[in-house]
Amino acid sequence: MMNIPTSNHPRVVIIGGGFGGLSLAKKLKNKSFQVVLLDKHNYHTFQPLLYQVATGGLESGSIAFPIRKVVQNFNDIYFRLAEVQRIDTENKKVIADIGTIFYDYVVIATGSKTNFFGNEMIKQNSMAMKTIPQSLNIRSLVLENFEAALLTNDMNEQNALMNFVIVGAGPTGVELAGALAEMKKHVLPKDYPDLDIRKMQINVVQGASKVLDAMSDKSSKKAEEFLKKLGVNVWLNEIVTDFDGKKVSTKSGREFYAETVIWTAGVMGATLEGFDQAVIQRGNRIKVNDFNQVEGFTDIFAIGDVASMMTEKTPGGHPMMAQPAIQQGELLALNLMRLRDGKALKPFVYNDKGSMATIGRNKAVVDLPKFQFSGFFAWFVWMFVHLISLIGFRNKLVVFWNWMYNYLMFDRQARLIVRPYKRKNEESFEMHN
Amino acid sequence: MMNIPTSNHPRVVIIGGGFGGLSLAKKLKNKSFQVVLLDKHNYHTFQPLLYQVATGGLESGSIAFPIRKVVQNFNDIYFRLAEVQRIDTENKKVIADIGTIFYDYVVIATGSKTNFFGNEMIKQNSMAMKTIPQSLNIRSLVLENFEAALLTNDMNEQNALMNFVIVGAGPTGVELAGALAEMKKHVLPKDYPDLDIRKMQINVVQGASKVLDAMSDKSSKKAEEFLKKLGVNVWLNEIVTDFDGKKVSTKSGREFYAETVIWTAGVMGATLEGFDQAVIQRGNRIKVNDFNQVEGFTDIFAIGDVASMMTEKTPGGHPMMAQPAIQQGELLALNLMRLRDGKALKPFVYNDKGSMATIGRNKAVVDLPKFQFSGFFAWFVWMFVHLISLIGFRNKLVVFWNWMYNYLMFDRQARLIVRPYKRKNEESFEMHN
Repeated sequence: MMNIPTSNHPRVVIIGGGFGGLSLAKKLKNKSFQVVLLDKHNYHTFQPLLYQVATGGLESGSIAFPIRKVVQNFNDIYFRLAEVQRIDTENKKVIADIGTIFYDYVVIATGSKTNFFGNEMIKQNSMAMKTIPQSLNIRSLVLENFEAALLTNDMNEQNALMNFVIVGAGPTGVELAGALAEMKKHVLPKDYPDLDIRKMQINVVQGASKVLDAMSDKSSKKAEEFLKKLGVNVWLNEIVTDFDGKKVSTKSGREFYAETVIWTAGVMGATLEGFDQAVIQRGNRIKVNDFNQVEGFTDIFAIGDVASMMTEKTPGGHPMMAQPAIQQGELLALNLMRLRDGKALKPFVYNDKGSMATIGRNKAVVDLPKFQFSGFFAWFVWMFVHLISLIGFRNKLVVFWNWMYNYLMFDRQARLIVRPYKRKNEESFEMHN
Repeated sequence: MMNIPTSNHPRVVIIGGGFGGLSLAKKLKNKSFQVVLLDKHNYHTFQPLLYQVATGGLESGSIAFPIRKVVQNFNDIYFRLAEVQRIDTENKKVIADIGTIFYDYVVIATGSKTNFFGNEMIKQNSMAMKTIPQSLNIRSLVLENFEAALLTNDMNEQNALMNFVIVGAGPTGVELAGALAEMKKHVLPKDYPDLDIRKMQINVVQGASKVLDAMSDKSSKKAEEFLKKLGVNVWLNEIVTDFDGKKVSTKSGREFYAETVIWTAGVMGATLEGFDQAVIQRGNRIKVNDFNQVEGFTDIFAIGDVASMMTEKTPGGHPMMAQPAIQQGELLALNLMRLRDGKALKPFVYNDKGSMATIGRNKAVVDLPKFQFSGFFAWFVWMFVHLISLIGFRNKLVVFWNWMYNYLMFDRQARLIVRPYKRKNEESFEMHN
């Protein structure tokens, strides 16, 4: 039973409290809609900083925000902690674990999840980093590996425990590799004086011919240079084909003996059941028109990572990042009002504000539509943009303070093993943890 | 394999990185001992503030501190993440899950754990609050109860979900009850506008005839008054005899229908195997002499909660709090040096600095040896003392900032469900989570 009261206003059910879902909900505030917001967590996750949680730079609470707090003063809005299974498009019902609910409009804003491309071995043995629990698992595993490395006299085992393979060199992989390299440089030698930390290896294995392959060549080159300067081994044009928990194999025949593989090499839309296969596009994303309407429907929408809006400029859909999700959520709020009022809908035009990635202290790359830059200023811009994008004054301040502390003290203080060492990527685990 | 190198210095093995173990390790810094510090967590827990983690006032990382960071600049000290099972007193060996180690001196500083007095039903169904994972479990459970309460139309079930029974009215029980009452007053009505939060019940069930029964009558009375003012139901002279997950029963025949029972009614020493039963005193504590030597040994020591030093003033041993542990740890460092140097040992004399408990904003009670006071100033003193007692500048600042924020904004922002709802108190769960 969802226990949502009836309302005089049309009901919009939003599935997902990520960047897209929340920006939509905020714009619908007190706009004569009843909004039902569903998420499987009771908090919004600021995913761009998950890698800092994984490497002990930030606590998980600093990059999460209670969804109920976001919508505290909204009229006629109902948040429910729920996992949605299916949309019954014929009867206009959303079917979730806590019950079903009728909708006038439904918005799928379920984001994306890690794509292991069907490789069960890799899925079972490697770590994903899309949620806070997963990031905390990585943090625990990294630290537990060093504790275990202290205890063994088998040098092969010790090397494997201190060998980290990051698959994928998109922003997540690059940022994670850089953060691990800084731990290696500044934190771990002090924490483990009786261990030769020089033996720690950080490998980034990238299938494409450059790191950050969605960015400009200039930024890619610079990022690779930064990574190498930090001691990260960068492997380009290498496709990881297997990881049995001990050995990583690539298509070209290369092998890495490592206990830890972090998989950032692919994401896929977190779609729901209830749609024809024809609606599901490449990358498991839902095909939408310029108004984010799911193909074949006028009352069902998809926004953000899970939506694939193919335009001339974006034949493969928009990039799976925060900005398209936020902008689509904002426009959709307007379009829902226009739809209700019988007005023509406005098509979505993506305002590409650029992209950026940080590799380490004073080391970042920024691509703006017109020009690119890197180094200290880029790093400063990266920090500023991420700081103002965080929800909530308290989180902004706590993150700012932590960054200042980490920068000045060359420290990462959140290195507590508070979660078990688990290499599970099942949905059930993500949900309940 | 512990992989501890040999040393010219005598080896002190310290089991436990709590208040006692850490104060001892710090005082032994560079004092020509080899120190081996073992703990089952890689962090020190500031237990007096666990209740604030449980009620969303603080993040867990703010009250934990990496042990490796504490001992970073010490010579000849080795921290190992390990759970100790047994002391082989004949062969002078400590037996842990990661291997065995010889000692010249061994110090048992394992603290205490929740005492369910052998009642398996209560143990299975109620929540303990001695560790950070347990506190996070309570936080998740409280919030999940409200999410569930929204979904039911069965009023009995809803009442049970919103009924919280805290067993025990020592400082932990009283502080937790007060914090829940403040959540009820300031946070929950805003977060759950479609739920009648007035139905939330907070019951404190105390076996003794007063709350805070180790404190002065004046402070007890005042604390009870504060609790009642905050809307907490205080039940005195009631012994809880059973909880089947739905119903709490007491000796006098009273019944509470509640989904959540938090058990703060007893602690017991977390002793190790390897000692005669005669050495184990009331409350599962190890009998020690005035020098903290375990009865029958000159090279085995116990300090803090796990040690029972019976003196004229303390026939039942010292109170199981931070202060005796810290003071015993400090003196023992001195005595180990004296023992090594062939000098006479100094007996422990407890310097009782008093005790205190906070019930809510501007509401605390303080017992000093000479006089007692309560209210705003006591609350201020409580905050100050806890703040300066936290390890690390960063933690002090983060906690201070959070308290300021919580006080000014009437908020508790750390209300994220990041852990599953589990009612387990097994050691294995505590260890691995």
